[in-house]
This record gives sequence, structure tokens and C-alpha cells, in this order.
Amino acid sequence: MGNSGADIRKLIEPSSVAIVGASANKESISGRPLKLLKRYGFKGRIYPVNPKYKEIDGLACYPDVASLPETPDVVLVGVRAELVPAVLKQSAQRGVPFAVIFSSGFAESDNQQAQDELVKMAKAGGTRILGPNCQGLVNFVSSIPLSFSASLDSDARPKGHVAYVSQSGAFGFASFAMAAENGVGFRYVVTTGNQADLDVIDFGMAFTDDPEVRLLVLYLEGIRDGNRFIDLLSKAKRRDLPVAVLKVGKSPTGQEAVKSHTAALAGDEVVWKTIFKQYGAIEIEDAQDIVDLGKIFGSPKRPKGKRLGILTTSGGGGIIMADRAYDVGLKVPRLPDDARKKVEEHIPPFGSSRNPVDLTAQVINQPEGFSACVDAVMNSPNIDMVSVVVSMITGESGQKVAHDIKSIFDKSPKPMACCWLINREQGGKFLDYLRKEGVPLFQSPRRCAWALSKLYESSQRFDGQEEEVKFMKRESILKDYPLKLTEYEAKRILGAYGVPVTRERLCETLNDALEAAEEIGYPVALKVMSTEILHKTEAGVVALNLRSQEELRNAYGRLMERAAKEVPKDKIQGVLIQEMVPNGLEFMIGVKRDELFGPIVAVGLGGIYVEVLKDVSLRRAPISKGEANRMIQELKGYPLLVGARGKSKKDVDALAEAIEKISVLACIEDDLEELDVNPMFVFDEGEGVKAVDSMIIRRGTPC
Amino acid sequence: MGNSGADIRKLIEPSSVAIVGASANKESISGRPLKLLKRYGFKGRIYPVNPKYKEIDGLACYPDVASLPETPDVVLVGVRAELVPAVLKQSAQRGVPFAVIFSSGFAESDNQQAQDELVKMAKAGGTRILGPNCQGLVNFVSSIPLSFSASLDSDARPKGHVAYVSQSGAFGFASFAMAAENGVGFRYVVTTGNQADLDVIDFGMAFTDDPEVRLLVLYLEGIRDGNRFIDLLSKAKRRDLPVAVLKVGKSPTGQEAVKSHTAALAGDEVVWKTIFKQYGAIEIEDAQDIVDLGKIFGSPKRPKGKRLGILTTSGGGGIIMADRAYDVGLKVPRLPDDARKKVEEHIPPFGSSRNPVDLTAQVINQPEGFSACVDAVMNSPNIDMVSVVVSMITGESGQKVAHDIKSIFDKSPKPMACCWLINREQGGKFLDYLRKEGVPLFQSPRRCAWALSKLYESSQRFDGQEEEVKFMKRESILKDYPLKLTEYEAKRILGAYGVPVTRERLCETLNDALEAAEEIGYPVALKVMSTEILHKTEAGVVALNLRSQEELRNAYGRLMERAAKEVPKDKIQGVLIQEMVPNGLEFMIGVKRDELFGPIVAVGLGGIYVEVLKDVSLRRAPISKGEANRMIQELKGYPLLVGARGKSKKDVDALAEAIEKISVLACIEDDLEELDVNPMFVFDEGEGVKAVDSMIIRRGTPC
Repeated sequence: MGNSGADIRKLIEPSSVAIVGASANKESISGRPLKLLKRYGFKGRIYPVNPKYKEIDGLACYPDVASLPETPDVVLVGVRAELVPAVLKQSAQRGVPFAVIFSSGFAESDNQQAQDELVKMAKAGGTRILGPNCQGLVNFVSSIPLSFSASLDSDARPKGHVAYVSQSGAFGFASFAMAAENGVGFRYVVTTGNQADLDVIDFGMAFTDDPEVRLLVLYLEGIRDGNRFIDLLSKAKRRDLPVAVLKVGKSPTGQEAVKSHTAALAGDEVVWKTIFKQYGAIEIEDAQDIVDLGKIFGSPKRPKGKRLGILTTSGGGGIIMADRAYDVGLKVPRLPDDARKKVEEHIPPFGSSRNPVDLTAQVINQPEGFSACVDAVMNSPNIDMVSVVVSMITGESGQKVAHDIKSIFDKSPKPMACCWLINREQGGKFLDYLRKEGVPLFQSPRRCAWALSKLYESSQRFDGQEEEVKFMKRESILKDYPLKLTEYEAKRILGAYGVPVTRERLCETLNDALEAAEEIGYPVALKVMSTEILHKTEAGVVALNLRSQEELRNAYGRLMERAAKEVPKDKIQGVLIQEMVPNGLEFMIGVKRDELFGPIVAVGLGGIYVEVLKDVSLRRAPISKGEANRMIQELKGYPLLVGARGKSKKDVDALAEAIEKISVLACIEDDLEELDVNPMFVFDEGEGVKAVDSMIIRRGTPC
Repeated sequence: MGNSGADIRKLIEPSSVAIVGASANKESISGRPLKLLKRYGFKGRIYPVNPKYKEIDGLACYPDVASLPETPDVVLVGVRAELVPAVLKQSAQRGVPFAVIFSSGFAESDNQQAQDELVKMAKAGGTRILGPNCQGLVNFVSSIPLSFSASLDSDARPKGHVAYVSQSGAFGFASFAMAAENGVGFRYVVTTGNQADLDVIDFGMAFTDDPEVRLLVLYLEGIRDGNRFIDLLSKAKRRDLPVAVLKVGKSPTGQEAVKSHTAALAGDEVVWKTIFKQYGAIEIEDAQDIVDLGKIFGSPKRPKGKRLGILTTSGGGGIIMADRAYDVGLKVPRLPDDARKKVEEHIPPFGSSRNPVDLTAQVINQPEGFSACVDAVMNSPNIDMVSVVVSMITGESGQKVAHDIKSIFDKSPKPMACCWLINREQGGKFLDYLRKEGVPLFQSPRRCAWALSKLYESSQRFDGQEEEVKFMKRESILKDYPLKLTEYEAKRILGAYGVPVTRERLCETLNDALEAAEEIGYPVALKVMSTEILHKTEAGVVALNLRSQEELRNAYGRLMERAAKEVPKDKIQGVLIQEMVPNGLEFMIGVKRDELFGPIVAVGLGGIYVEVLKDVSLRRAPISKGEANRMIQELKGYPLLVGARGKSKKDVDALAEAIEKISVLACIEDDLEELDVNPMFVFDEGEGVKAVDSMIIRRGTPC
């Protein structure tokens, strides 16, 4: 695995490239890289390596890497798997900085050992590996392809602002080709294959440093280190770079396929969604999403809000755009009167100056009228972005409309997209023209609205103030506890982190208990403590609301007897004497350590809300108080916390603070596997919260 | 508005067509229909009508409709709005059966009156109108275009099995053209414009009778008669015809645009969704959906279940397909061992015989291997349909793969779709070939999975047994009640329909009340009845759990005093003495009459479930008991009815029966505007339900 700061400059921009296994057959995997380098006009030195040839395509051919006249920046390796180690050995010996290994037959073919040996060999000489089983990369800025992909056979050089890193070579280059043909421009496309050394995160980190990258797209089958992924998202966020992630294998079936397809670990669907949301990644699902985001993020213009102005030549298309905009959370506000008046100067009576503005097919034929109407909408103070929906405008009119849209787009101060509903036969010419000119062009109102909504959301995410998590400097204490903690022990841990818990004392004898009750004050609760009893209430070892010494005595005898039937006596740690707290609203805070991303915190209203209605909100720890507040507000049952149906307002502030503290606990106590505070009572505003019951399980606890 | 049984045969398949306003300018709206008729090879008689010409394009031209040598089946009208009445008058006088009016300048331009006059004029001669402000229609079975749309300029004749009726001409023909180019075949495309006479439903009804139609697509801006729409969906369901509906203007903004765009009424989003679900229509949102459904429903094969087999040349593409299939509710089961063995005979070790089956790019080059693998998956007993995902396979290999897919598709016993991730430049040839051959071809796994899921769902909806609603023959009784009913009155109505209500008596005096309490048995509840008091509990005019004469006396005095402060004495109908019922689970059943679709029934668990969590389930009345059961099961809180968290099972059967009865009530009492039973207590299994409180408002009640 690479470091997050891998310096990949020489890989991205090599001065010299050796092609091992170079073939005179320009259509073979080992012949194509040379053909592509020449076709793209690579200006550096190219060294074909193949003992069978003296020369290939006018270039001197060398028998092996050892005999090259200089140490190349990159060695491309396309030979059979069993020949790769020898090549890598020579490369390492010469100190070649980068080897791109196309060859398959390693981890993906259940041959992990051979792959591990490659890495070891490379490391010895400081050679970094891309692959094996990858399709290489392309640097469109300098027009350098280090790949054999058929998608590069095109004469188009889709240079632009998207950096795309894909674990899958086949899917990566296929979706790249589809995006490029739809007008998306790229800076880099990298496929990482088995990721024996350099991985998606390495390239993501490097591309985040390039200020010309406007969108980073990642295709992930799995990652091995969740923290590096979070670091990447955080770094991108600091530099306002939107990151779109296609994480495959989130479905139960998909997961199985991922495991058989790569050696990487697949995480859990809900956790991934949580991470995307929390760290501001755009979750994508399909090649189509890459195409559509690539279009819309290609322009540097960003909307200030979510208010969309729609102009259309066909009422129907405009309404559909309005409906789909509404579906994805955009607004389509009515235009102010002065804007409407400007529009009305140009449209016939059967048009509409509302939003959507129905220009009618008549107006679009008058360049001034069309342009004036778009301007009027674009300049409305209550409009943040504009979408122009065109239907079957063909022939010369179509040509004119396309040109008008292009010039309006160029000077438009706000983001603008075009949605043209037409077939290729009639509209291909205009569509190709608009794509070539970089106008975000869609043929589906839904896709257009979706892309605009992502543009809006990703400009939004940088506006919020970053709240700091109140971390405390302290040593972990959990490691001194047994694997399974009793309620009493769990609450000591919570208390140590400042989470309010019930007043209570662990007592070993009846006399102890009576004394504790005196101190705490009646009424009290009595609970038998044993890590062997998971569900105390069900086991009948809890007595509530004991009002006197006598009641306590009776309960003590009864409960200890019951407990003795459940577990051996030496497994009973004692009884807990606990204050009875006034009824609060029941809340639940849970923590579960995820293999990849560490502690994930779940919160929800207690009882049926979590168990039946699944109304929970999740975040990765640590969580600032502000973020904890947002978690609470996301709950469907949130109104119950702020006084729905005539109930009193609850202390949401104290609840958010407790969530923050528990999240800090989960980070510091890296031995924590699971934690549950259930119920956490939430009292009326200003009166705080209190953990009434809790359980903690340490890592390594057998299930 | 047309009758649902309009005989439109002569419009769809005319023997003779007159073109009024025919122009020698073949590119004008009035010149293009003639050009298109000739281009499509129309075999009937064509009569250009225009006093300016003696002849157009070799055809004799007539000065007006009156002077035509025969009465044509259809008159196409493309003249200016002010000239249309004269044309229609002559057409009606000659008894022309159909006039297709392209001309605009009627209801859509706020000129409803002119449009009404056209209809009146036409009716006098039995002439039916399509339009005005429409783009006409095309019959692809007989190759007859009665339209001017530029989308028909193509030489392609996409004859197939989709019937498409669109209110919008521009959107209709644009989406038609996009679908046709993507391989979708059509039988009919009709655009209805202002629908002064014939409307979308008329054509939908007619096309439902054509057994060759495999998918009916409707684009609706609004409809005027909800019942006819339901009749159409029901008719289509009886004949197993899937109906896809793009209803625009469901969003708040969209609605405004619809109102300004057409004269039709727009319904409410939630109600439309309810109707679609209940009557089995496929809700669509975009031109893209029309394209994708058209592809998948073109073949007559239907899946028996939802289990998808995936074969792929690229691991990545296969996993994405599996993920997206999972998202839309399909299953991707592991293949049985014998199928896996067959697959393993053909794939290399780095492939996968699981599902998704990763063939690797190697296998797809061997036609027998490829075909054998698809067969093995296709014939697995646990697979209902198959999707083949291809990535960047180009050149000769691409050609071979395309041909193999085509021949496998032709003989495949189960539905099959292909998803090919490639750009046009490299793959256009294969893609076009597959489209031409009718193979459902996608370039997005998500769209492919979505379309297959709709294929599955729409074959499912015909499997369920139709349950009959237990209707009772009775006269409506609500009309004899005041506009706002008291709880007492509302429960009389409920009781009359067999809905269990609390035992209770309306009493005018204290003595009455004491007597009633004796009869019902203490404890009782006392509620002051007045239609002026909407919220009795809030107004403090309810006393619960009165255990004796004395308590009742005191409560009576206190409550009557309070009531007197709220409303004039003559607005108090008396007090209700009501049995106290044991606590049941609180449920809510509501009815609201929708302008378009009549009574809509909403059910949910009482209190926070409906009010805070919005956990409700809706249907249009009437509702069979079986359907009522499904409504209940849809609720997120459903587990609470069947014994979640250690609670007892409730009498869901009795609850479903009550919902059925209330739905019947809502149908028979066509004077009902709103009804609320809240709470309806649901008791333990076998112990029934009881309406504890209720309110009814009649139509015409001022807000």
C-alpha cells in the first residue's frame, strides 16, 4: 500500500517510457501502448523492449530493461505473468521509479503470493507499481497515454477538468469513453487494477493538489484503510474539490462478486452512505452519473442557491424539468414582475412568462428575443442557475438555437445547462456542436435536474462552518476493564468522559445496599450486576421504585435468589443501587466499530422508534456538537423532542453534547467494540440528560 | 369530451385524407403533411385544399372542403385560427367523420370560446375533432402519418408494439423520435393538444383493444374525469396490458405551469401516486423512461419472478448491475452447482461462475463458450431473466459478440437485455445492429435494472386474485344530515354501514343522561355535542371514566357550563353518554374526497404515527378487504399490530373489514367531503375494533 503522499509526478508526466514485451502487432495488448504513445504525440523517449526484435516501428528495440541506454521514468509491462518478476527485478535494480503492470494472473487469479513477491522485489529498488491487472493511465494535460485501452483509439483528445481514478480498468475506460463522447473533458484517467502498491487513494490525493481539477471521480470496489479515504475526502473538502464516488458491491449480491473479483474488503452499505454524507462525497451509482457530473462540473461556475430558472420551447419539456427539479430538492420560483415584463416583450400570448418560461418555438427563432429572455431570467435576483429545455427544433432553426445557446452560455454569470429532446438523426449536428463547445448538454430533464442539484449541494457543503470537536487529552481506560462490562462499569466509563449518568453505587452485601440507598435517597432501583446476564429486566433481576428499607430488603433477597438460578454465584459482581430518575423522553445512543471506518455512532428515539420504525441517524466518530444536533434533527421523530402534540420541549442541547462526548469516548477508547446507552433520558429544556442503562463490549469479545 | 368507446378506426386508418391549407412549400406546417403522406407511401386518396392552387405536387387541389369529389375520412386543418371555423363548418356539413386541427390560437391562448364553438359546430355534423393545437398522429402499422412533425422526416419506420398517446405534441414527437432511434417500435403515436373533443383516454381505450399493443404510454398534463382514467387502467389490467403514465405538473411549481399551459385540471401528487399504485400503472418521469420501457416491453417474453442472472465481460460492470438490480428490488441469486459447473468449463480461473458470472473478455470471443454460458444461466431453475453486461469490446470481437447476443436473444425462453458500456465512435455499429434487431439495449446498468424491474412488476400485478369489494345495495343517508355532523351523527352513519362504534346515546337532559348511563353501565364518558365545537377535548367538554350517578351529575353541570361559554345554547345538540371501552391500539381511518378521483382513504396508527411520522397508507375507495390488509401491512408501524416488542397481536382482520366498510360508505354517500375515525380502537385478535370518535363533513360545507 502506498503512502498518501506518494510522489507520482514522473508516472503522470514521464520523460522516457520503456515498453516491455513491445510487439510489432499493433493490436495486441503489448503492441498497442506504443501505437497510442505515437498517436498521441508523446514527446519523450520510447524504448521498446523485446529480445525478438531489433527495431519496432522505427524505434530501436532492446532485449531487456538492463540494456536500456537510460533508466526510464516508467516501464510498461504487458508480458505473461510468469515473465513479470524478471522484468521487475531488472527495473528495481536500475532504480526505475514506476512500473505499470498490465499483466494479469496475480491476486485476481488467487495468486496472492506471486503478487506479494512483486511488491517485495520492487520495494528493494524503490520502484512503485501501478497494477498488476490494470489498464494503465492517461495524462490528457500533456497528452500521454500509458495504456492499451481501445477507448483511446479515438482522435478526440477530451482535455478538461475531471480526474478519474478507477479500480476497474474495463469499467473505467468504458465510462471514460462514454463521458468523453458526451463532451466531458478529462485531466487524468487512471486505472489501478489489483492495487498491489499504488491505489485509488494515492492518485486521488495527488490530483487533489492540482488546482485545475474541478471534479474528482473515484470508482471503488473496496478499500483497505478507511482513514486514508476519510483523509482524502477531508483534503478535497478543504480545497473545495467535489469528489464523486462509485462504490460497488454495496448490495448483498454485489458484495459477493466484489470479494471474488478483487482482494479488497467491502464495507457495509449503510456505513458507506453515512461516510459519503458526513464527509460531503457525491454518491454515484452508474456510468451515467459519471457522464452527467462530468458535464456539469466542467464549467467553474457554481450556484449560490438552489433556485432554478427554466426556459423552454415546449410547455411539456419545461414542466417535466420543473417536476424533476422539485424531486431533487431544487426550487423553481416565480420570476419577479420586472423580469416577467422583459420576457413578455418577446413571447406571444400563448407563451408564459412564469417559471418555467414557455418561449414557444416561435421565439427561439429570433436570436435577440431568445437571448433577451434568457438574460432576463439569468439576471433575476431570485434565480441561481438556468436550464434551457429545447424540443424538436431542427434544420436551420436548430443550428441557430445551438449557436445562441453557446454564446449565452459563454457569457452567462450563473451556471447554465441545456436539455435538448431530439434524436441523433435530426439533432446530432447541434448536439455535437454544443458538446464540443463545453455546454453541459442533457437529453433527459431528470438527469439535468439531478446534475444541477449535485452542483448546488456540493457548493453548499463548503459554506458551513467547520465545528471543532471538543477532544480531551486522556489515556484510554477501557483496557483495564473485562471484555464484557456490567452496567455499572459501562457507566463509570461514560462518567469519565463527562456523560451524565444516574447516581448509583455497586454494593456487595445487603448492608452495603441499605447504606447506599440511604445516601442516594429513596426511592431507589436495585439491579443485580453480572456480565453473564445480558437482559436484566427479562431475567427478572431488576426492581424499581423501592421506597423503604423494607422494600429494599425484600427485593434484595428475591433478586439474588433469581440471579443465583441464572448464573454461578461467583459471576455475580454485586447489586447496583441506583437513584430513580423522573421520566424523561427515552433516547438511544449506540456505537459500533466498523472494520474499515472505526466507530460509527447511531442515535434515535428509544423503543419502537429504533426497533420498529428504524428511525436512526448515523455518523462516524468523532462528531462535533453541531453535527450531533444535525443528527438529532434528521430523525423523523424529531418533533417529539421540540414539543410536538402539546408536549414540553426537551433538552436537545444537552443531548447533542452527550452525543459528542460519547463519540470522543469511542475515538479514544480504541478497544471499544460496541457501546449502548439505552435509555438515555432526555429531560425538559435546561434539565439535561441522564444515561439510565448502558452496556459496553470490548474488542475481541467472543460472540 | 369523447365517450370512452369512441370509434376512431377511420381516423387511424383513413382511406382518404383532405389537407386544408395545403401548401406547395413542403417545409411549412401545412405543406409537410402532404410530403409525409407521400413519403410514407400512403395508399389512399389525398385531396389538397387551397383556393390558391389548381394542383400541388401532381395532385388536383380543391378550393374548399365543399367541393371535394368525395367525403374524406379525415380533414387535416393547418390554417390560421380565424379560418378554422369555416373549414369545420363545411366538414360538418359534409359529414366528415374526423378533423385533425393543428392550428393554435384556441384554449391555450385563452380563447376558450372559439374552441367551444368549434366543438359545437363539429358535433352538429357528427365530426370528431383531434386538437386543436396538436401535432396529429401516426399509424405505423399501415404507415400513415397525419402530422407535420419533423421527427417523421426519417427514413426509419419504427413499426413495433408500443402505442403512445401524448397531450403535448412537441414532447410527444420528441420522445417518440428518441425512443425510435433507440430501437423502440411503435404501432401508434397520437398527440391530442387541447383535447377539445377526443382526448388521451379515448385513444388509450381504443388501443387497449388492439392485441398487438404490448405497452401503452400516456403523457398527461391533466385529465377532466378521473373515473374514465380508472376505467382505462382497469380495462388494460383485464387484458394484461401494461400502461406507463407520465403525469406532469405534480410538483407545486409544475402545477402552476400546467395550469397556464393547458385548460386541464392538475391533481395532487400523492393522490396520483396512490392511483398509479392501486390500479397498476407504471409511473414514469422522463423521456428516458419512455425509451427504456419501450425497449424492454417490445418483446413478448415476461419473467415469472424477480431473479436476475447476470453475465459480464468486466467484473466491474457486472457488480454495478447487481447493485442496481438490488436497489430496484430484484434478486441476484447464486447459481445452482450444475449451472456453475457448465459455466466453469468455459471460463478461465480469474473469471467467476457465481452470479454475476464474470466471463472475462477472453470467453466472449468464443461464440460457443459465450452461448453455452448464457444458456447455463438462462436454464437455471432459479433464474427468471438475464442481463448481459459488455464493456469496451470493439472491432471484430465486438461484431461477433453483437451477433451472438442477437441469436441468443432470439431463442431465449426468458426475457433478456443487453447492457453495453461503450462510446458511439467505437461501438456505434454493434449498438445500432442490436437496436435494429430488437434486442433491448442499454448503456446504463441502472436503467437496464429499472426496466427489468418494471417488466417483473407488471407481470406480477396480473397474478394476484382480484378480490371483490363487498358492496351493499342501499340508498345514501348522509343527505338527510346537516353539513357538519356531530360525533353522534357521524357514528350513526358508520353504524349504518356496519362499522363497530361505541355504545352511546344522545341525551337532551340530565335525567336522560342518567338513564342512558344506567342502561350502558358505568363507567361512562360524557361529551357535549355541538357541530360548533371541533376539538372537544381541547374545549374541555369531555369527561371520561365517570363511575357513578354523582360523578355524572357533577360532570354534566361543569361541562354544560363550559360549553355555554363556547357556543350559543341553541347550537348544543345535547350530551353523548358513551361506554368506556378498554384500551385498544389507536388507529386512524380518514376519507377525503378528491376532485378528480373521488373518495381517497387514508389509514395509519393514531397519534404521533400519523401526525409526526406521517406513516399513512392511501387508496381510492372502494377498497376490498384484501387491499385493506395490504394498506395496513404497508405501514411502518405495522409490527405494532402483530405483536412487536412483546405486545399482543391485534385484530387486523376486523380492522381491514372496517376499512372496507368505510370505503363503501364513502362511495355510496357521494355527498361525503371528509370523514375521520380517530381513534379507532383495535383490540386483541378476535376482539374486534371500535370507532371511539369520528367526524363527518358534507360537500358544500364552507371552510
